Amino acid sequence: MPRHFENAEGLCQQPDAETQRYLFNQTMLRIKDPKVSLDFYTRVLGMRLVRKLDFPEMKFSLFFLAYLGDEEAARVPEDDAKRLTYTFGREAMLELTHNWGSEDDPDFQYHNGNDEPQGFGHIGVTVPDVYAASQRFEKLGVPFVKKPDDGKMKGLAFIKDPDGYWIEIIQADMMEKQQKG
Amino acid sequence: MPRHFENAEGLCQQPDAETQRYLFNQTMLRIKDPKVSLDFYTRVLGMRLVRKLDFPEMKFSLFFLAYLGDEEAARVPEDDAKRLTYTFGREAMLELTHNWGSEDDPDFQYHNGNDEPQGFGHIGVTVPDVYAASQRFEKLGVPFVKKPDDGKMKGLAFIKDPDGYWIEIIQADMMEKQQKG
Repeated sequence: MPRHFENAEGLCQQPDAETQRYLFNQTMLRIKDPKVSLDFYTRVLGMRLVRKLDFPEMKFSLFFLAYLGDEEAARVPEDDAKRLTYTFGREAMLELTHNWGSEDDPDFQYHNGNDEPQGFGHIGVTVPDVYAASQRFEKLGVPFVKKPDDGKMKGLAFIKDPDGYWIEIIQADMMEKQQKG
Repeated sequence: MPRHFENAEGLCQQPDAETQRYLFNQTMLRIKDPKVSLDFYTRVLGMRLVRKLDFPEMKFSLFFLAYLGDEEAARVPEDDAKRLTYTFGREAMLELTHNWGSEDDPDFQYHNGNDEPQGFGHIGVTVPDVYAASQRFEKLGVPFVKKPDDGKMKGLAFIKDPDGYWIEIIQADMMEKQQKG
């Protein structure tokens, strides 16, 4: 019996042995304009573009981004094909899909999942200090859904990416500190 | 200048030093019925429930799941508050949000982002062997959007979770192998 932490109806505490090399590789969001989104995810949020794939016949491009520390960046393969295997073999990749031409239509807008009809909610980025990060985002002109001390849930923020997708800004130890009062 | 791998318009190759401890922590999806979704994500996909949070005043619950190997599972803190900090300090958490009562409404359905209006596309799980994994999913009665050899993109599959969200099933080295042809 593997170690488990919570009980809940429906929960299987003994993962099938076949699944134990599975990993949560990616989250895909469609974007209207890659030059705007890449600027946001690299300059503002500090991710790196690990791999880009263009599909000219089907007129779309994929951008795979991740947080790589310098140590990990040094280990990423130079070779394009090997770096692709690396991209699909690592947890926590953000995949941005650009269907060519959407950036030229001023009325084009993707659905963020929080307006109706709801579904997908947000991605979340953990930062060392949610207040310092929020001040930096404010200085950079990033739109907020919620500043850290707005509303009932103190100490966490929500910002919007260029397509209006919500990004939660989390400080890992905030709730633990709050619970200790 | 940090190491970089791709060029693209808008790209910032020098991440701000302040962002270098940021990490891509979570992806949040709303779910209709946690007992159905927990069964799917733990029994079928092999994730583990790391932390569950109930907010009775606001009538919702959050379920944080991840792929933990046995080694990592052994290091996860027992203490609930510390395990929460662990949950928010790790990459690649799947957060499922349950707004209480949705499971009792037979007509209730979340929007998967691939039907119109589009936005969020999918999450992706990397598996050692996409054909073996797909056979297992078939045996377990999981609905497919695309089997590995359907369509133009061979060697990758899409399945549906209980709310209809798409999950890409990826074999990390598949495209590298295909490119070598």
